[in-house]
Amino acid sequence: MTVDVEPGVRQRVLDAGVELFAAQGYDATSVAQIVARAGVAKGGFYHHFASKDQLLYEVYGDLITRQLTQMDRIVARGDPAGETLRALIVDLVETTAARAREARVFGREVHRLDDERAEQCRLARRRYHDTVIRLIARAQATGEFEPVASAETITFTIFGMINELPVWYRPNGRKRPHQIGTELAEFVLAALEKSDDRP
Amino acid sequence: MTVDVEPGVRQRVLDAGVELFAAQGYDATSVAQIVARAGVAKGGFYHHFASKDQLLYEVYGDLITRQLTQMDRIVARGDPAGETLRALIVDLVETTAARAREARVFGREVHRLDDERAEQCRLARRRYHDTVIRLIARAQATGEFEPVASAETITFTIFGMINELPVWYRPNGRKRPHQIGTELAEFVLAALEKSDDRP
Repeated sequence: MTVDVEPGVRQRVLDAGVELFAAQGYDATSVAQIVARAGVAKGGFYHHFASKDQLLYEVYGDLITRQLTQMDRIVARGDPAGETLRALIVDLVETTAARAREARVFGREVHRLDDERAEQCRLARRRYHDTVIRLIARAQATGEFEPVASAETITFTIFGMINELPVWYRPNGRKRPHQIGTELAEFVLAALEKSDDRP
Repeated sequence: MTVDVEPGVRQRVLDAGVELFAAQGYDATSVAQIVARAGVAKGGFYHHFASKDQLLYEVYGDLITRQLTQMDRIVARGDPAGETLRALIVDLVETTAARAREARVFGREVHRLDDERAEQCRLARRRYHDTVIRLIARAQATGEFEPVASAETITFTIFGMINELPVWYRPNGRKRPHQIGTELAEFVLAALEKSDDRP
């Protein structure tokens, strides 16, 4: 979100912040502790982040920005709804799993954000949600998807699974993120796609 | 979890705790503030709760205890898997929606629990999860449900939706909890039930 003129420092500060927030909570963590853990000067912190609040915001901002960029790319392909939804779900699972610790810390501390930053996060998430709702609703209208439930409820179900993933996902677990994403997509599409398309 | 020898006081303390935790966070809330808001004597608090920790624990304990009791009742009927899963999902959505504020506060503050109480919560949730996993896996083995995805991933998807519900559900929203639960059940069963059973 800031231009990274000094690569490395920004990421080290972010990583140190996430580690400390995870271990001792956001409130108990000071900027002094973060710069000490990151091994950077205080000026290095403030070059990249206006405040501790801003750092917390960017912990999530980095993830959702990447996910929205991928979303736009996937939707722009103009593939059939089933393929598009499958690609979106797999990407959401993979990117969330890759940043599971960040997502866990952010989920726990999101209520510490000031109103403006909280609103920014809500708007970013809403843009993804609304895209999925529209994709499903449109495919239900054309008959490409079955009207088994409202597009909103299906979208809340998909994001419920993805937003909870940081709670239970472990990088050394039995299943790779790609497999989890594919299973979720198969499950969702089994409900949505016409029975005569099914094997 | 404690025997309620003085009905009213326990619930008033729980409600006051939830209100204060929601408004200002768990850490910033003292037992003195809770008893003042509840309009009870300090002894009334300590008659029902050993500590602030215990109160936080019982905010969730009351909900999960009720849900597990209902789960046992529904499973004991011995209905077909589809009917059982539908009844479980509708009950989970309805009871979670009825205690959405409690679930929201608990979800935010759960990491403040001591290890023993956190473990108790995990075990209670695990018992529900494991029951659903077994129900789905068994029905997939008998052919009653389709093997569209693993029973674990499907269970994580159902609980992902339900655990996120307190974040977006509003009592004055457009849909009643029963409708949300029915939609989620329809969606899940559309994926799981054999295509030749579908209309």
